[in-house]
Amino acid sequence: MDKITGLIDAPFTPFYENGEVNYGPIGKYASMLKKNGLKGVFINGSSGEGYMLTEDERMKLAEAWMAAAPEGFKVIVHVGSCCVKSSKMLAEHAEKIGAWGIGAMAPPFPKIGRIEELVKYIEEIAVGAPRLPFYYYHIPAFNGAYLPMVELLEAVDGRVPNFAGIKYTYESIYEYNQCRLYKNGKYDMLHGQDETILSSLAMGGARGGIGGTTNYNGRELVGIIEAWQAGDIETAREKQNFAQDVINVICHYRGNIVAGKRIMKLIGLDLGKNRTPFRNMTQDEEDAMKRELEAIHFFERCNKF
Amino acid sequence: MDKITGLIDAPFTPFYENGEVNYGPIGKYASMLKKNGLKGVFINGSSGEGYMLTEDERMKLAEAWMAAAPEGFKVIVHVGSCCVKSSKMLAEHAEKIGAWGIGAMAPPFPKIGRIEELVKYIEEIAVGAPRLPFYYYHIPAFNGAYLPMVELLEAVDGRVPNFAGIKYTYESIYEYNQCRLYKNGKYDMLHGQDETILSSLAMGGARGGIGGTTNYNGRELVGIIEAWQAGDIETAREKQNFAQDVINVICHYRGNIVAGKRIMKLIGLDLGKNRTPFRNMTQDEEDAMKRELEAIHFFERCNKF
Amino acid sequence: MDKITGLIDAPFTPFYENGEVNYGPIGKYASMLKKNGLKGVFINGSSGEGYMLTEDERMKLAEAWMAAAPEGFKVIVHVGSCCVKSSKMLAEHAEKIGAWGIGAMAPPFPKIGRIEELVKYIEEIAVGAPRLPFYYYHIPAFNGAYLPMVELLEAVDGRVPNFAGIKYTYESIYEYNQCRLYKNGKYDMLHGQDETILSSLAMGGARGGIGGTTNYNGRELVGIIEAWQAGDIETAREKQNFAQDVINVICHYRGNIVAGKRIMKLIGLDLGKNRTPFRNMTQDEEDAMKRELEAIHFFERCNKF
Amino acid sequence: MDKITGLIDAPFTPFYENGEVNYGPIGKYASMLKKNGLKGVFINGSSGEGYMLTEDERMKLAEAWMAAAPEGFKVIVHVGSCCVKSSKMLAEHAEKIGAWGIGAMAPPFPKIGRIEELVKYIEEIAVGAPRLPFYYYHIPAFNGAYLPMVELLEAVDGRVPNFAGIKYTYESIYEYNQCRLYKNGKYDMLHGQDETILSSLAMGGARGGIGGTTNYNGRELVGIIEAWQAGDIETAREKQNFAQDVINVICHYRGNIVAGKRIMKLIGLDLGKNRTPFRNMTQDEEDAMKRELEAIHFFERCNKF
Repeated sequence: MDKITGLIDAPFTPFYENGEVNYGPIGKYASMLKKNGLKGVFINGSSGEGYMLTEDERMKLAEAWMAAAPEGFKVIVHVGSCCVKSSKMLAEHAEKIGAWGIGAMAPPFPKIGRIEELVKYIEEIAVGAPRLPFYYYHIPAFNGAYLPMVELLEAVDGRVPNFAGIKYTYESIYEYNQCRLYKNGKYDMLHGQDETILSSLAMGGARGGIGGTTNYNGRELVGIIEAWQAGDIETAREKQNFAQDVINVICHYRGNIVAGKRIMKLIGLDLGKNRTPFRNMTQDEEDAMKRELEAIHFFERCNKF
Repeated sequence: MDKITGLIDAPFTPFYENGEVNYGPIGKYASMLKKNGLKGVFINGSSGEGYMLTEDERMKLAEAWMAAAPEGFKVIVHVGSCCVKSSKMLAEHAEKIGAWGIGAMAPPFPKIGRIEELVKYIEEIAVGAPRLPFYYYHIPAFNGAYLPMVELLEAVDGRVPNFAGIKYTYESIYEYNQCRLYKNGKYDMLHGQDETILSSLAMGGARGGIGGTTNYNGRELVGIIEAWQAGDIETAREKQNFAQDVINVICHYRGNIVAGKRIMKLIGLDLGKNRTPFRNMTQDEEDAMKRELEAIHFFERCNKF
Repeated sequence: MDKITGLIDAPFTPFYENGEVNYGPIGKYASMLKKNGLKGVFINGSSGEGYMLTEDERMKLAEAWMAAAPEGFKVIVHVGSCCVKSSKMLAEHAEKIGAWGIGAMAPPFPKIGRIEELVKYIEEIAVGAPRLPFYYYHIPAFNGAYLPMVELLEAVDGRVPNFAGIKYTYESIYEYNQCRLYKNGKYDMLHGQDETILSSLAMGGARGGIGGTTNYNGRELVGIIEAWQAGDIETAREKQNFAQDVINVICHYRGNIVAGKRIMKLIGLDLGKNRTPFRNMTQDEEDAMKRELEAIHFFERCNKF
Repeated sequence: MDKITGLIDAPFTPFYENGEVNYGPIGKYASMLKKNGLKGVFINGSSGEGYMLTEDERMKLAEAWMAAAPEGFKVIVHVGSCCVKSSKMLAEHAEKIGAWGIGAMAPPFPKIGRIEELVKYIEEIAVGAPRLPFYYYHIPAFNGAYLPMVELLEAVDGRVPNFAGIKYTYESIYEYNQCRLYKNGKYDMLHGQDETILSSLAMGGARGGIGGTTNYNGRELVGIIEAWQAGDIETAREKQNFAQDVINVICHYRGNIVAGKRIMKLIGLDLGKNRTPFRNMTQDEEDAMKRELEAIHFFERCNKF
């Protein structure tokens, strides 16, 4: 299978004030991402509050992103849920509407304790979209599935034909590299932590990744890869350090799902609130965050429309 | 609000061999539970694989249990999910079909880290069934919500009018007792660990609970309460020790959801498999478990039809 | 081996203002404990900051307690440490000075991950005091040794001749009971959580325990056992609830090691500070704690000199 | 303060068959390390089983390393323990015998939960050796001290005059980089994971580190730094991948403390066993490990005498 090069964005899901999904801004959203160098979107994932959406909302969002996606812009649909039957149905839907690929994280409940359980879960979902590449989304901090990823590759190899790779959102660049080395790079290892892109490039020869802060800081994150490929380590470091400055700010306000989504409003694309049980930022918090972002000159470097 | 006395059962969900829900056995199931002394059911919870079911399946199961419930047999519907919008809808449905009450555990994702988040989650669901008592299902081993329950009672008191109490499935009999003492027993504290019912009776003066092994060992578990109330501590202990013997066995085969469900087949009510990612027992495991159960004379003391 | 009946106290270690151990108060301390119904002491354990003491200090404390112990008052010396060689030496010393018994918790580093490791650790220590009963101190919250205790009993049985039982400081009254049932009560199961003594009496038929809040609340805790044995469940419950009231207070001030030690000053036996890294209470905190204790009429029911 | 450049080794502690410390091999050990490019040693740390040694053994080992250290070879003494009084005494001893520096990890018991507790612990130790640089050894997997390291730097800055930096043995290269950026590199950030040296060089501009597998694979690890500095990223990656191959092998046999120590025997420096509760490798395990190492041509690239 072809590997992804460049950065895919994990978009937020827009909501109306009354808490219902707002499909309106997606066209503008997709264009903006494309313009700032992103290669596609990984929708209905953690940044998109996918687990907090109904089945119906997830399908409508997938359709909206398909309708909005510019030429050559990949739409990957996260279909993971606690109910494997529902996930399989979402996979079938994704294939039917022409999505580029699908993905799923391990369910947070029941907690997956063994590779065998995870493979069976993946298998039953992936078979729903046999012509699409399937990406396992490894984010154990969210679901407790602290399992060895090389063993996962060994287990799916030869068993899940459309298994394409891993969105790797975990701190072990050691394991990331070991996965990349598996059968000389048989599987696509998408780095999934914007704060350490440079690390994946140096250690692992990464070519692609999926970002969450790419929603508003995509130009600089794309710039890290470009600088590295041009042999300009100093520029790559400067941009990586800037990306960490931005992430430092959102960490003061409950992270990307809450604070990152609010930054979208500050750069001109109001996406509304988060669903319960996320605690939405107050106006005071928004004001304070804005000042912190100004102090690092974020608004001069952020994504543009 | 009235408090529950006696034991409520958390039933398993029957599946066909092809993995679809089998609503057929529910009538027989309800009668059997009633006959063995259970006072009602807490459906679509962890024993019932509620999180592994689609919204539609959950509603149909609730309807099937309502149709099957004998006179005076309480049907409490677990409506918790990662999507609060879906949970509220399930609450509305439960009230519409005449369920006795509703309940919800904390969502496993996003992980609840603060009482404030949990209260908001509860509030948005409970409002969907304003005339039904709402029970919070505290089972932090399943969702990571290790929060102080006395603080939860303080937070819901005066804010969530139909909050009735807690199904307490956690080891701290200290905290259980503190909750029971809150405002002289304002809230209903349903003990939720069959291995320590006697403990809740002695320490906390418990009057009711919700069991998982009551599905097949309900007579003995009901007997613990009866013996205690009759002042017969020796009989209560013997039955509690027997209940632990049974639980020791299921712990050898991945616990109640997997092994307990299989015991139902052994006592005459085949409920089929578990959904992925649960690992179903092999025939060899079933045979071995049967021998272990015979060794403790389980089949002489188990629930009868 | 004989089993312990009644409650053993885990005493605090007195310090001078300059941080050195103060052996002075031990005589008065021992007399007071005896007078209030305690049957002995478990010294140099967690309440005694044993791990925060030098080898030399631990031996001198053992000698001081031996010198102070009234007739028939048991002195059990906790000899556990990260260095098994040091622990064995402390065991030899305990036997040499005539201590009644020894004990050790699992070392916090390296973290014990297997029963086999724990048994070897116990074995190498216990052999240093072959004529004394050895108690394993199970307190996994302090050292991460979340191991199955029935398996420990199976592993030491026939291998560690002087293994006497377990000081069980963990919430699973289920496991506690299973250990008690092992070979019809072969090993001595000392309950180790003052907040749930009644639970161990009802469920497990416990006869003894080791307390930390017995230092200042021993009369009431002894009273729980007496009331239970007299068949007076209401009095037992009232005293247990009072014990929980007291524990609620110390939990507001960093628990027994810090707050409990300060209570000793308030009842007339100033034992000084805790060693770093414990954070000692401020005067304001002490004042606030005193008010909380007065509100529950603690000073009318506490230990007397 | 000057920063460390190059790699410092964390040596194992030699034991006789009877379990006593064997000071004999230290001279040969030090020469070998120097010859293979190491710049010094960090003794009595986790690789050296420092916590499993008596105070007396720790001091004698420090003296033996001082006597053996070649010209310009740094001896840093790990003095951390659960007893801050003992640690301070070890710090005084280290300064007295002319050690180059000292270090301490957070105590595993009591578990440190706040920066304030950690700073006080560090302060009381560091004052024992006021003329030596103090390194905090951050290895939370061993002691549960998952604390934010930038906050530690802020807290010690201006308060602990001889605080020099952090030996950072944790996976967050993001946090590592943030620490390095603190006040333009005020503190020395020693990378402490041999599997990701390249990552620290690329992301953080690291100049030095402390290794555990440097004991036997030091030439290749030093080679990563040299290749990076020469701009030869391909060689750096090849050597880093080889280092991961070696680490993959030791992970099959309980890690560096157990398996790494046994490798020393295989390359010609038998250091004996580990202390209980470590489980020593069997002969079969040793043979199997040797075959795995041969398969990756380890013995052609390992450290030489």
